[in-house]
Amino acid sequence: MNTVEEQKSLIRAALGREPLDLLIKNVQVVNLYTGEIEPGVIGVKAGRIVTSEASALEAEQTFDGAGRYAVPGFIDSHVHIDSTLLTPANLAELIVPAGTTTLLADPMEISNVAGLKGLETLVQMAEGVPYHIFLEVSSRVPTAPGLETTGGRLGLKEVEQVLRWPSAISLGELDPSKVLGMGDEYLAKVQAAYSLGKIANGHAAGLDGQKLVAYACGGLLDDHECVDYEDAYARLRLGLAVLVREGSTERNLQMILKGAHKANMDTRHLMFCTDDKHPDDILAEGHINYMVRRAIELGYSPVEAIQMASLNAAIHFRIDHLIGSLSPNRWADILLVDDLRQMVPSDVFVKGRWAAHEGKLVEKPPQPVAPDWILDTVKVTRGRQAADFELHGATPQARVRVIDIYPDQIINREAETTLKVIDGAVIPDIENDVLKLAVVERYGKNGNIGVTFVRGFGLQRGALASSVSHDHHNIVVVGTNDEDMAVCVRAIEAAHGGLAVAADGKALGILPLPIGGLLSDQPAGQVSAELGKINSIAKQLGCKLPAPFMSLSFISLPTVPELGLTDRGLVDVRKHVLIDSVIEGN
Amino acid sequence: MNTVEEQKSLIRAALGREPLDLLIKNVQVVNLYTGEIEPGVIGVKAGRIVTSEASALEAEQTFDGAGRYAVPGFIDSHVHIDSTLLTPANLAELIVPAGTTTLLADPMEISNVAGLKGLETLVQMAEGVPYHIFLEVSSRVPTAPGLETTGGRLGLKEVEQVLRWPSAISLGELDPSKVLGMGDEYLAKVQAAYSLGKIANGHAAGLDGQKLVAYACGGLLDDHECVDYEDAYARLRLGLAVLVREGSTERNLQMILKGAHKANMDTRHLMFCTDDKHPDDILAEGHINYMVRRAIELGYSPVEAIQMASLNAAIHFRIDHLIGSLSPNRWADILLVDDLRQMVPSDVFVKGRWAAHEGKLVEKPPQPVAPDWILDTVKVTRGRQAADFELHGATPQARVRVIDIYPDQIINREAETTLKVIDGAVIPDIENDVLKLAVVERYGKNGNIGVTFVRGFGLQRGALASSVSHDHHNIVVVGTNDEDMAVCVRAIEAAHGGLAVAADGKALGILPLPIGGLLSDQPAGQVSAELGKINSIAKQLGCKLPAPFMSLSFISLPTVPELGLTDRGLVDVRKHVLIDSVIEGN
Repeated sequence: MNTVEEQKSLIRAALGREPLDLLIKNVQVVNLYTGEIEPGVIGVKAGRIVTSEASALEAEQTFDGAGRYAVPGFIDSHVHIDSTLLTPANLAELIVPAGTTTLLADPMEISNVAGLKGLETLVQMAEGVPYHIFLEVSSRVPTAPGLETTGGRLGLKEVEQVLRWPSAISLGELDPSKVLGMGDEYLAKVQAAYSLGKIANGHAAGLDGQKLVAYACGGLLDDHECVDYEDAYARLRLGLAVLVREGSTERNLQMILKGAHKANMDTRHLMFCTDDKHPDDILAEGHINYMVRRAIELGYSPVEAIQMASLNAAIHFRIDHLIGSLSPNRWADILLVDDLRQMVPSDVFVKGRWAAHEGKLVEKPPQPVAPDWILDTVKVTRGRQAADFELHGATPQARVRVIDIYPDQIINREAETTLKVIDGAVIPDIENDVLKLAVVERYGKNGNIGVTFVRGFGLQRGALASSVSHDHHNIVVVGTNDEDMAVCVRAIEAAHGGLAVAADGKALGILPLPIGGLLSDQPAGQVSAELGKINSIAKQLGCKLPAPFMSLSFISLPTVPELGLTDRGLVDVRKHVLIDSVIEGN
Repeated sequence: MNTVEEQKSLIRAALGREPLDLLIKNVQVVNLYTGEIEPGVIGVKAGRIVTSEASALEAEQTFDGAGRYAVPGFIDSHVHIDSTLLTPANLAELIVPAGTTTLLADPMEISNVAGLKGLETLVQMAEGVPYHIFLEVSSRVPTAPGLETTGGRLGLKEVEQVLRWPSAISLGELDPSKVLGMGDEYLAKVQAAYSLGKIANGHAAGLDGQKLVAYACGGLLDDHECVDYEDAYARLRLGLAVLVREGSTERNLQMILKGAHKANMDTRHLMFCTDDKHPDDILAEGHINYMVRRAIELGYSPVEAIQMASLNAAIHFRIDHLIGSLSPNRWADILLVDDLRQMVPSDVFVKGRWAAHEGKLVEKPPQPVAPDWILDTVKVTRGRQAADFELHGATPQARVRVIDIYPDQIINREAETTLKVIDGAVIPDIENDVLKLAVVERYGKNGNIGVTFVRGFGLQRGALASSVSHDHHNIVVVGTNDEDMAVCVRAIEAAHGGLAVAADGKALGILPLPIGGLLSDQPAGQVSAELGKINSIAKQLGCKLPAPFMSLSFISLPTVPELGLTDRGLVDVRKHVLIDSVIEGN
């Protein structure tokens, strides 16, 4: 909130007793409360909107809207900043010119690496960025206690502490295992959120029927894991809002909105999020503005699409007094847009400050210095040698489990296959795209390595690895052979974290992510270029996935069905237990 | 919130591992999230809804819905319990059978009489009632500091204290004088509300244009003072929700909803309230269910009308995780209704308990004992004698101000007229319905009496008086002669508060309101009958108003344009200053 003095200056400006700070003239105001688009102005004082009515108020500064549409800044209703690989400051270059002025961010990644200290460091590094960050306080760090090794932990005490921060707006995504498993700690976290006037976000991947009802009984109020309209409809029926997601590999918008539009479903409980989106994809297609554009293409009116991108999320997260519309007293987060159907803002204002123009930031945000300790979090005990990845086979053939991945979805399917055993080791079947997958513990705690098989990457030779691997963020590595897998791990260790690609015993490319092993300290353009480079090497090695490192980072999730791989081994997500990779023949 | 153990029992019930407490079978479920009406059941555990999907779950108890509609309980989004003249327990008899299961109540009246102690007493007296009460914490007690005498005061400290209560959901209606006057205390109260995750309610009576914009800049999020659609539209444009009001004398529903329906305005920011409604009117026409019925008659679908009566208010007040729909984990507040267009529930459940059947409570709520001190708050110093009401005139005629009242509205108009002066006293002009109006201080503090003239009551003889007079709750009295006015004041004093009617020097009727001078300790039927009796005596005396005592109780409001009368004298509401009743000739 403003101070009382700021509030008074807003009121005085509205009454014409004090000049406005800024008057944006000659705009078509998109009013999300009435659904009207009408000629007007935007008057700003102390970072807030005073009026959007045509008015004779005077201002210190005027800005010519040149007849463009004035649209409220967009809200990403669920995002992991860490998935962009950028610091919050460098991320600004990508999202603010695209019109995203607010992130509702779950700092789960950095918390898994370094607990509350990591979370606080990320928040400190975000100071002074030209957009708003509100926190969805990570509810499950670690995500799968007993099934994975992490660097940090957020218990009930830490979560309650962060929930009290003014920037905290909700308890972050709580997965079904915690709710249906009725863990006291997690249910107490949900109650802590509501008792502090905040909501609890869901993550109901793969649930339906009775289990979905039971999940809703846990007090969660939304879900961002809907894959299609059937999922979305099942959740709306239960009074859960749907956070429609369009990330790098989780592309749910078309299937959800096509169905919703056809069914003429009320849109007020639908909103947009990216969850996990890499910088190259944001650069190529946009951010939340891309979702608005797609929604309009699918038949929604611009007003409805913009509501999903702003007001609906503001109301759901109970911050509609701060953002989500161009109404008095809300933050002056304003996009000036030539064409609502394209939704590419030519100017962006945040808190009344001119923030972006024609795709570029007006001013470079302050570059925070990362503390030393967060630049040194990758401590590998085992995984440097090919032998560390061997899976023992006692018979000429072994029956194994395979994680079957979908190209554009976060979920996967459990499969089985038979592999050859040579010299006592089960070997991948490159011809049939059955590759080896491993997760290497990287907090210097126990040297665990989990190994299994995966189908869908299509590598013909070499290996890929990443120290971003949800949610424990150990090193995940996929390969056609153990030697290249070890090369990747060594490259990541040397870079203190990153994405690596190797073949024929040599590292071919590395994108260093030294901040917690998760984030680059480089600008968006460079990270995007380097990511493009290693992606293209991966492609040369035969990889068929559009975003191989994003896909890789999700395989280890022990919370998204059907299988996950952690440093402790293969996890049956539905049963929340460890299972064997080799079923017969070891 | 539930305890963790209750939450677990809900989840276990949903999973079929524990029987439900109650299963209401064979209903048509009205789903306010999807807008669908479909066959289903309602499963209840620990007072909460587990499911509304058809299901094979077992239950301790079943209830046959007999094909009726299952509708979420209604929410009165802004009400002064004190205006019903009933204790919260006795009020249950009227509202619960009509389907209102939640009151969002501003305890402003009792706070003006007795401060925080009064507010706490009302809340204690409400313990165990078969409906939910959430508090809109009174923001302005007194309403007009310096312009009126009250018994109590709620400063920033007291308001912050109450805002922290789990039952507090907002800062109550803050009127324009506080916001446009930029009082530090009031703006700090607004910020306190938001910093505690709660909203701030508006009361923007009579505002438009620049002043309305400035008012919205004060951080208020809604208004319940809209008289017509033009008012409502002006507020929606500014991002303010509209609490459509239908009380005893403030009847705004038809004019607002007719316009909104014609304009095809989005209904999500519209909700219903009664504000001030007498028991006889509730008995005669209903409560929020009456508004639903009227909305449907005006062209809205039953789903839209029910949304305005429940979900919309729950979302606006940020308690949609608790009430507003028949979704899992919400309180099991359920109406069973034969005909959605009539909207008269034949059975009502609150927190899963069977609360009303065929217009009657199933169980009488516990009758709280009012503490002694609250039964003795009417302490009259002056006003017992006719001479106390004399207005001096020095010339044969005097020019005076007149409060011109509208029959069905809370607002009034300033007028002037010329009256005769006899024996040095300005006298009423009964023929032209210009009567004397007085407000007598009743807290034993200073013996103030304010006197002016009013048009609209139509009394031919006698006088009416009330110790309910917003918001200071001194004794307001209207009469054709000073003697009968004094008789009324003496009758109210003897009854420790109440509504009185007198003529020819004799008290003809009294409805005693001994609790704070505001509430009866008698049941609804008796209060309603006694109110009917004194209303009919008032009619016999010539009064033309449908609810004369309600109209009388609002005339003294120093916050609703254009004029108000307090014990200090006549108030120009727009300028917030005392003005003379006699303009020329005294």
